[in-house]
Amino acid sequence: MERSIAHACVPLRLVGPIRIIGETGAYEVKAPLATFESPLWPSVARGARATSKAGGISAVILRDAMARSIAFEAGSAVRAAQIIRELEGRRDELFSIAEATSRFLKCHEIAFRAVGSCVFLRLSGNTGDAAGHNMITKGADALLHWICKTIPGVRYISVSGNYCTDKKVSSVNAILGRGKCVIADVLIPPAICHSVLKSTPEAIAELNVKKNLLGSIINGGVQSANAHFANMLLALYIATGQDGANTVEGSQGICHAEVRNGSLYFSVSLPNVIVGTVGHGKDRSEIKERLAALGCMEQRKAGQNSRRLAEIVAATVLCGELNLLAAQTMPGELVRSHMAIERRTKRGS
Amino acid sequence: MERSIAHACVPLRLVGPIRIIGETGAYEVKAPLATFESPLWPSVARGARATSKAGGISAVILRDAMARSIAFEAGSAVRAAQIIRELEGRRDELFSIAEATSRFLKCHEIAFRAVGSCVFLRLSGNTGDAAGHNMITKGADALLHWICKTIPGVRYISVSGNYCTDKKVSSVNAILGRGKCVIADVLIPPAICHSVLKSTPEAIAELNVKKNLLGSIINGGVQSANAHFANMLLALYIATGQDGANTVEGSQGICHAEVRNGSLYFSVSLPNVIVGTVGHGKDRSEIKERLAALGCMEQRKAGQNSRRLAEIVAATVLCGELNLLAAQTMPGELVRSHMAIERRTKRGS
Amino acid sequence: MERSIAHACVPLRLVGPIRIIGETGAYEVKAPLATFESPLWPSVARGARATSKAGGISAVILRDAMARSIAFEAGSAVRAAQIIRELEGRRDELFSIAEATSRFLKCHEIAFRAVGSCVFLRLSGNTGDAAGHNMITKGADALLHWICKTIPGVRYISVSGNYCTDKKVSSVNAILGRGKCVIADVLIPPAICHSVLKSTPEAIAELNVKKNLLGSIINGGVQSANAHFANMLLALYIATGQDGANTVEGSQGICHAEVRNGSLYFSVSLPNVIVGTVGHGKDRSEIKERLAALGCMEQRKAGQNSRRLAEIVAATVLCGELNLLAAQTMPGELVRSHMAIERRTKRGS
Amino acid sequence: MERSIAHACVPLRLVGPIRIIGETGAYEVKAPLATFESPLWPSVARGARATSKAGGISAVILRDAMARSIAFEAGSAVRAAQIIRELEGRRDELFSIAEATSRFLKCHEIAFRAVGSCVFLRLSGNTGDAAGHNMITKGADALLHWICKTIPGVRYISVSGNYCTDKKVSSVNAILGRGKCVIADVLIPPAICHSVLKSTPEAIAELNVKKNLLGSIINGGVQSANAHFANMLLALYIATGQDGANTVEGSQGICHAEVRNGSLYFSVSLPNVIVGTVGHGKDRSEIKERLAALGCMEQRKAGQNSRRLAEIVAATVLCGELNLLAAQTMPGELVRSHMAIERRTKRGS
Repeated sequence: MERSIAHACVPLRLVGPIRIIGETGAYEVKAPLATFESPLWPSVARGARATSKAGGISAVILRDAMARSIAFEAGSAVRAAQIIRELEGRRDELFSIAEATSRFLKCHEIAFRAVGSCVFLRLSGNTGDAAGHNMITKGADALLHWICKTIPGVRYISVSGNYCTDKKVSSVNAILGRGKCVIADVLIPPAICHSVLKSTPEAIAELNVKKNLLGSIINGGVQSANAHFANMLLALYIATGQDGANTVEGSQGICHAEVRNGSLYFSVSLPNVIVGTVGHGKDRSEIKERLAALGCMEQRKAGQNSRRLAEIVAATVLCGELNLLAAQTMPGELVRSHMAIERRTKRGS
Repeated sequence: MERSIAHACVPLRLVGPIRIIGETGAYEVKAPLATFESPLWPSVARGARATSKAGGISAVILRDAMARSIAFEAGSAVRAAQIIRELEGRRDELFSIAEATSRFLKCHEIAFRAVGSCVFLRLSGNTGDAAGHNMITKGADALLHWICKTIPGVRYISVSGNYCTDKKVSSVNAILGRGKCVIADVLIPPAICHSVLKSTPEAIAELNVKKNLLGSIINGGVQSANAHFANMLLALYIATGQDGANTVEGSQGICHAEVRNGSLYFSVSLPNVIVGTVGHGKDRSEIKERLAALGCMEQRKAGQNSRRLAEIVAATVLCGELNLLAAQTMPGELVRSHMAIERRTKRGS
Repeated sequence: MERSIAHACVPLRLVGPIRIIGETGAYEVKAPLATFESPLWPSVARGARATSKAGGISAVILRDAMARSIAFEAGSAVRAAQIIRELEGRRDELFSIAEATSRFLKCHEIAFRAVGSCVFLRLSGNTGDAAGHNMITKGADALLHWICKTIPGVRYISVSGNYCTDKKVSSVNAILGRGKCVIADVLIPPAICHSVLKSTPEAIAELNVKKNLLGSIINGGVQSANAHFANMLLALYIATGQDGANTVEGSQGICHAEVRNGSLYFSVSLPNVIVGTVGHGKDRSEIKERLAALGCMEQRKAGQNSRRLAEIVAATVLCGELNLLAAQTMPGELVRSHMAIERRTKRGS
Repeated sequence: MERSIAHACVPLRLVGPIRIIGETGAYEVKAPLATFESPLWPSVARGARATSKAGGISAVILRDAMARSIAFEAGSAVRAAQIIRELEGRRDELFSIAEATSRFLKCHEIAFRAVGSCVFLRLSGNTGDAAGHNMITKGADALLHWICKTIPGVRYISVSGNYCTDKKVSSVNAILGRGKCVIADVLIPPAICHSVLKSTPEAIAELNVKKNLLGSIINGGVQSANAHFANMLLALYIATGQDGANTVEGSQGICHAEVRNGSLYFSVSLPNVIVGTVGHGKDRSEIKERLAALGCMEQRKAGQNSRRLAEIVAATVLCGELNLLAAQTMPGELVRSHMAIERRTKRGS
C-alpha cells in the first residue's frame, strides 16, 4: 500500500434551487451532485423546477437511529432462549453499558433473533449528528464484551452479525430502522406536469405502478420500488463526505404516485438514509463548506443538522425520480436526452 | 443548475500488489481505491499480502452481458401471450434490430415476463469494453419502437421496465445476468492464515457461515451473503470512472469459505460487476492513466480490457472481504483497528 | 410408524359455476374447494358470480415446464467455469440423457449458477399431464450420475441443490419458470362491481395498489403481491390430489387491477402453478371423479388436461382474490362476514 | 355454490414416536401426517428413530403472538408522521381498544410503516390457544374504526394492509414475529448418523451449507434455508385442523447443521408456526381426538396447549428435514427410495 494519498476527482455541480418544507420550516438549497453521470444534473434540475413551482417538497423524518448487531453462540437453542429472556429483562442495564461508550449515543431498541443456538442481538440508537457507524459499533462491542464475560457459556462469534446491516441489501433495515427514515412528497398541478415535465399526472402514475411497483416485484427485489434513487444518493453522498457505499441500502425505497383531483401526488419513502454532518470524512474543508452551504453546520440541538441533510437528500431524490419517470412516459425521450447531454458534457469537460 | 463544473475530491490510495491469475495469465496490480473510509486501505492491503503469499487469486468470468427491459401494454393477458409467442418466434429479427444500433452490441438473450396484460421484454447482450448502459438502452429502444409500430394493439409503457434492472436490488440480475459474473477464489494454508491474518481457517469458515450466510438470510436480503463487498466496489468504481451507483447490484454476491485439508478455501462470487474501460466517464485523463496502470488499456480483442478490469474488481473484493472476516474472528479487533486508523488518517490528511 | 393408513377429512364444497375462456374455448366448472376455512366458499362464489356476469375469465398459459437442480463440486472456480462451458456445449447430449429416463419428459432448458467452486445445474422440461416432480428428478439424477462419471474431478453434492426449487419461496421459479405460468384476467363493468361486489372499480384498484403492491413491498416479500392466493390454491390442490405443499410457491404471484374506461380490469398472474392430472395421488377414485367433473380427464394431447386444470386454478384464484379485495374496500365488512359464516358453518357441520 | 358439504379424504399415518424435550418436560408423540405424498411417512419415521436414539429433540418457543396490520390514508407524509407520533404516544389506549374485543387477546406491540401518505399499523398480541386469525383481526378492526373516528383527516384503506402478513411470503413475519417462533435442535453422535441415517455428520453439514444455505441464497428466497419444511407442516396442519395455507410462511425457516466434536448438531428454526388447539376447525371430533392424542387438550394455562403443538410441529419438521438431507448425501438414494415407496403405497392403498 502506498503511503501517499492522492485524490480521485468526481465532477460536481450545484443543482437547484430545490424548495423544501422541513422540520425547521421552508428553505431553498442547491444540491451538490458529484457524479460521472452528467445527465443526472439536468434531470434533478427539472424536477426541482417542477416541484418549486408547485410550492416545494415536504420532507419528514419518521425514525432516526443507527444499528449494529452482534452474534454469539449459546450452545443450544434452549440456552439461547434463556439468555435472550435474561437479556430482555436487563434491557436498561444493556443500554447503560452501550451508552457509556459515547457522549452522544442514546439507545432505542434491542432486537433478538436466533438460528439454532446462535444468537443475534441488534442494538439501535440515536447517534446525534454523526452517521454513527463507529459510535454504534463501539456500543455493540461493549455489550458483546460484557455478555461474553457475564453470561455463562457464551462464545464470541462476531461484533457484526449481518443482522445490522451495513451496505447490504436487506429487509431488516427497513422494518426495524437504520439511519434516518425519510419521506418526501409533493402535489403537482396538471399544468406544471405539462409545462415543466412534458407529461401528465395520469401517465406518471401509471408508469410508476407498472415500472416501479410491478417491475420491481417481478425482478425479485426487496423493499425496493423506484427507478434510480441510487443515482441521487451517491452523488450527494460523495459531495458531502458520506460513506458512499451506504447507497446500497439507501437505494431500497419506494416511489409512490397517484392522481388526486387531477393533480399528481408524488412521494419517495427512504427508510435508510445514512448521513452525518460530523465524524469521519466531514473534517475536510471542502466538505465542511458544502455542508455549510446546505445550512447543515448551524448551531442546533444534536441531530438537527444531520436531519436537515436527510431532508435535502430525500427532496433531491424526489426531484431526480420525478424527472426520470416523466421522461420515460415519452417514447424515445430517454435515449435522446442522454445522448445529447453526454455529448455536450464531453465537449465541455 | 450552475453551469460551472467543480469537482469533489475523494482520497485515493494504490493498494497492493494483488496477485491475480486471470484469463490472460498471472499478473500483479495495485488497486486504486478512492474512499473517505480510510480503514479500507490497510484492510485490502492485508488481504492482498495473505493471498499473494498463498500464490495469488484466481478469477474467472462466467457471463458477460448488459441488459435492459422494455415494457408495453398488450390490452389483455391472451393478447400478451400471443405477442410473446410471436416475438419469441422472431428472435433473430429482434436481435438484428437491436444490433443495428451499435457496432459493438452482440445480443445474447430475450426474456419475457407478463403481469396481467403488461409485457416486460428483457434484452441482454455483450457490449464489448463498454459497461454498456447506453448501448443496450439504444438497442432496447429500437426494439420497443419497432414493436409499437409493427404489432397491432401494443401501447408504449417504458423504455425501462425495471426488469433490467439498473442500480437496484433484484434477483433477476443474478439469475439472468447483468454485467459480468465473476468468481474469484484462493486456497490459503493455515500458516498464512495465522501469520498474516492472525486467525485460523476454521474460525474464518465458521464466521462466514454464521455472519455472511445465516446473518444475511435472517436480515431478509436477497442474492447477498457478504460482509462489505460494497466498500471495495465503490472505491474501485470511483477511481476508474465507473457509474458508482452500480455498487448497489454489485453488492449482491456471495462469500463462501470452507476448510479443505486444513487450508482455507475462500471465494467471492459477484454476479453483477458492471464496469467498462471505454465510454462515458472514461475519457478523462486521470481515469485513463489509472486504467492503463491496471493493464486495462491494451490492444486486445473487444471486451478483454473490461474483463480484466472485472477480474481486478473481484480480486480486490476478495482481499477486503477476507481481511474483514479475519479481523472479526478476534474479539475487539474491529473497533480497535478502526479507531486507530481513523485517528491516523485525520492527522495525516 | 403405524402400518394402517387412515384419512383426514377436509370439508369440501363445489363452488361456482366459474366461467372460463381457455385454450380450448369457453367452459363452466364448479371448483371443488377442500378447506377448514368455510368463509372461502362464499368468497369464491361471489367472485364467480361477478366474473360470470361480466362474460367470464380469460386464462392463458405462458410457460409449462418442471425443474430440478443438481449440485456438484468442481474443486475451483476456474474448473467450475470450464465444466459449465463444456456442458453448455453438450446441451443436446444432456437433454438426451435426461429424456431417456421417461417417455414424457421434453427438456426445455439448462441453466447454471456457481458459488465459488460449487456448480448448480437446473434442468427444466415439460412433463405432460404429470406435475412432474419425480419425472424431472429422475432426469436430473441421470444427468448428475453421467456428469460425476464423465467429467474429471467432479464430486457429487446433491440431486437437489435448492436452485430448483420445490415448496420453497424463491425468485428463480418465477424468473426461469417452474410448473405452469398462468395469467387470468377479466374486465368488470362498474354496474357489476356495484351490484354483485358492493364496491367500485376505483376502490378496488386503489386497494390493490396500497395493500397488494405497496403492502407486499414493505413486508419484504418477493415475487408476491396478493391478498390470499394461497387459500384458493390449497383448497383446490387438496381436492384434486395435488402435492399441497406446492401452495408455497404458488402463493407467489401478482394481483393487478386498474380502471379502464370506468370498468375494472382485474388480473392474477401465477408463475408457478404445479398441478397434474396423472401421477402420484391421482389414482384415487374420488380424485379421478373430481378431475373428470372438471373436464380434466378427456382424451387429449399429453399436457392439455393438466393445462386445463391450471386454467381452472387461476380462474378460481381470481374469483377469491377479487371478492376479498372488494370486501376489504368496505370498513367492517371482513370481520362481519367472517364471523357470520363461521357461526353458520359450525351449526351446519 | 352447492349447499351440501362433502369431504376430501387425505391419507394419514401416525409416525413416530418422536421424543421431544419441551417447555413442560420430555414426552413422546406419534405425529399424525395427512398427505398424498406417501414417502413423507418413512422419511419422518427415520428421522424420529435417529433423534430418539440420540436422546430426543429439544424445542423452545421464543415468541408467541399473532399479528394483523391495518392501513389508512393520512393525506400527506407530514400528516402521516404526526398521526404515527400521536398513536405511539397513546399505545396503552390502543391496546385497551383492541383487547376489549376478546377475552384472550393480550397486545404485545404496535409497529408502524408509511409509504408516502399511507400508514400501515401492525398490531400483534398473544391469542392464547387459538391460532388467532380472527381474534387479532377483530382487535385491529376496532383500532381502525377508532382511528377513523377519532383522528381528523384519516381515510379508511383496509383492515388488512399486507404488512401483517397472512399466508404470504415476507420478511416482516420473521423479523417482527407472527405465530410462534420455535427452534428445535438435537445433537446426534456419529454412530447414530451412520447406523440409522447411513450418512456422516460431515456430509450432512456440508450438504446443508451448499444446498440449504447457498442454494437458497442463489434461488432468490427470503428468510428461507431448508429442503422441505413445507411437507411436514402441511401434513400436520391438515391432520390437526389448522389453516393449511399458513404453510406458506411456515415454510420460511432455517435449517442449520454443524459438526461439534465429531457429532452432528442439527437445528430447525421456524419463525412463523401458526397453530391453535381451539377455534375454527378444531371443533370437529376427529381433530379433537388427534389433538388429545398429542397431549394438546389438557387442562393448562391458556396458550400452553398450542405451544406444545408448536413444539411437536418443529420436532416433526426436524425429523423430516434431517432424513431428507441424510438421504441426499448419497448419490441415487432419493430417486430409488421415492420410486419404491410410491409403488408400495399404490399397491397398498
